[in-house]
Amino acid sequence: MADFHAVIPAGGAGTRLWPLSRASRPKFLLDLTGNGRTLIQQTWDRLSALTEPGHIHVVSGAAHAPRIREQLPALEHVYVEPAPRDSMPAIGLAAAIINHRDPDAIIGSFAADQTIADDQAFADAVRAAIAAADSGLVCTLGITPRGPSTAFGYIEAGATLGDGSTARRITRFVEKPDAATAERYVASGSYFWNAGMFVTRTDVLLGHLERLHPALHDGLVTIGRAWDTAGREATLNRIWPDLQKIAIDHAVAEPVSLEGGMAVVPGTFGWDDIGDFAAVHEFGASASDTLWIDSDGLAVADDDTLIAVVGIPDAVVIRTEDAILVTTLEHAQRVKEVPARLKELGRDDLV
Amino acid sequence: MADFHAVIPAGGAGTRLWPLSRASRPKFLLDLTGNGRTLIQQTWDRLSALTEPGHIHVVSGAAHAPRIREQLPALEHVYVEPAPRDSMPAIGLAAAIINHRDPDAIIGSFAADQTIADDQAFADAVRAAIAAADSGLVCTLGITPRGPSTAFGYIEAGATLGDGSTARRITRFVEKPDAATAERYVASGSYFWNAGMFVTRTDVLLGHLERLHPALHDGLVTIGRAWDTAGREATLNRIWPDLQKIAIDHAVAEPVSLEGGMAVVPGTFGWDDIGDFAAVHEFGASASDTLWIDSDGLAVADDDTLIAVVGIPDAVVIRTEDAILVTTLEHAQRVKEVPARLKELGRDDLV
Repeated sequence: MADFHAVIPAGGAGTRLWPLSRASRPKFLLDLTGNGRTLIQQTWDRLSALTEPGHIHVVSGAAHAPRIREQLPALEHVYVEPAPRDSMPAIGLAAAIINHRDPDAIIGSFAADQTIADDQAFADAVRAAIAAADSGLVCTLGITPRGPSTAFGYIEAGATLGDGSTARRITRFVEKPDAATAERYVASGSYFWNAGMFVTRTDVLLGHLERLHPALHDGLVTIGRAWDTAGREATLNRIWPDLQKIAIDHAVAEPVSLEGGMAVVPGTFGWDDIGDFAAVHEFGASASDTLWIDSDGLAVADDDTLIAVVGIPDAVVIRTEDAILVTTLEHAQRVKEVPARLKELGRDDLV
Repeated sequence: MADFHAVIPAGGAGTRLWPLSRASRPKFLLDLTGNGRTLIQQTWDRLSALTEPGHIHVVSGAAHAPRIREQLPALEHVYVEPAPRDSMPAIGLAAAIINHRDPDAIIGSFAADQTIADDQAFADAVRAAIAAADSGLVCTLGITPRGPSTAFGYIEAGATLGDGSTARRITRFVEKPDAATAERYVASGSYFWNAGMFVTRTDVLLGHLERLHPALHDGLVTIGRAWDTAGREATLNRIWPDLQKIAIDHAVAEPVSLEGGMAVVPGTFGWDDIGDFAAVHEFGASASDTLWIDSDGLAVADDDTLIAVVGIPDAVVIRTEDAILVTTLEHAQRVKEVPARLKELGRDDLV
């Protein structure tokens, strides 16, 4: 079987985790689960069990590359995007570089800011996805829903591939549903959360891209060829600014699934995207010196400040050097309104 | 008429205003109304309209004397208690010292940590009390209730003194009532809040004390005689430790009122004791950089930290260098539980 390479697109601001998560200190650089490892370090640890360090590749913006190298000292390959262009150019850049070095390579793409409780079950699912990808399918890991969430897109699964594989053909991808539709999806047992984890042969991915988005394909392949040469910078600066900004879901996954070219490996490995402080609270990461009086919830201070909460059940209190957030677990999703509001007020220093 | 001297007992921790108010930085040293003057400075300003700076006397503990002198540069007389002994020894100490210097003097005692909106009406009430005191009564200022509060003791007033005075004979003092009793008191029109403001001739006060608490009287008079001599420290250190710890209400006001020796001047001068953060909120002193999203309330930071509150109406958020308090206006009275709890936990550094 072909060599497996792991790709980690390290992006996403995590605005619902303000003021911990900031433009200059995004979610994946934070230890949100209280276990001493940041989210990108946990992602690295998980992927290191599947492949060697030299086969792990991070794609990120220039601002975060130094911190990433600091947090992942064994990391060899960081691909810096001159500007963000959404997930298809980011993953496509890694695919083009790796494919030019090793045309048979299979890549798996895993976001830098998600958590997984059961690493063994995750590794088994990735191996099943690699086997399915080897046969020419673009494969995803689908998360068995823990409830009728309206926060995720869903993947509808059809028949299994056979040969004992847990992988199933994908019928279609669907956008975030309303509550009633989500209930129906979960009850059916045929729908899985789309966590954006893709496993595919690089030649298969680039082939789909060539057919569906030829200009983007040509640009990425040109950059991939120049990457390990003296012409890297010049090529990147010439081509990158004009690349189409598009998510891999829209660019490849949705159209290819309708053609029958995609598979999903259902997973029950305790996946979480730690989308807001309610999720952080579930990890029990409240490490601060807190006095709860008729109160409960999440309190975090980035120094040894004492936090006292009186008479607020489900409180969320977050203190950083320059800001304090106070809300409740119920309103955790609305925290993104704060950085949005600060931007309007011209307080970019706090975003 | 005899000379009028103002006495300011500067004590009281203000535990319901934690973490702004601290053992080392009590309520009277804080600017809680947002007007640029601390509570003791406002008290000074108010009394300076009634008497000259050399006739204003502060009684305090050793820990706070330097900050008091700093905040009141024109203050001449600070009497430092070796240890707190409640209000009777504090006011009695000032009375004994002043009486020894000027046997005819009338004193008025006014707490350092209260606010008054209408200084002119206050001055008129004090002048009426001085006239009543000159005739040999111990006089108080009684606050016309703004509602049936259960947070204050009440004064029951009887007939007016006559001669056009607004002063009325006091029938009795009553402790903090329950809600139903408070409703009845306020409806009657004969009850006033006891704000602990006493106006009396020093010889009259010391006379009552001699009769009711002779040991305390003798100790205070001995200290008063030695105060302006080289024997001050030795006398103070010999006598003070054994003085009875008692409030002026129990020591003098309650028994003397039952004997018909007390009067009350009802006042409607916007008195407030700023007892909790709900009161601070009413002063509109929220000076901080705050983002209220579907929220409202009081937010104070002692630096330029931004505070963001999402989805909590009537929030209270207080940040100091070493602590954060989060509660709601509804629970403002319960804030005192925090320093109490911290004491139990041995965190005296935060009390």
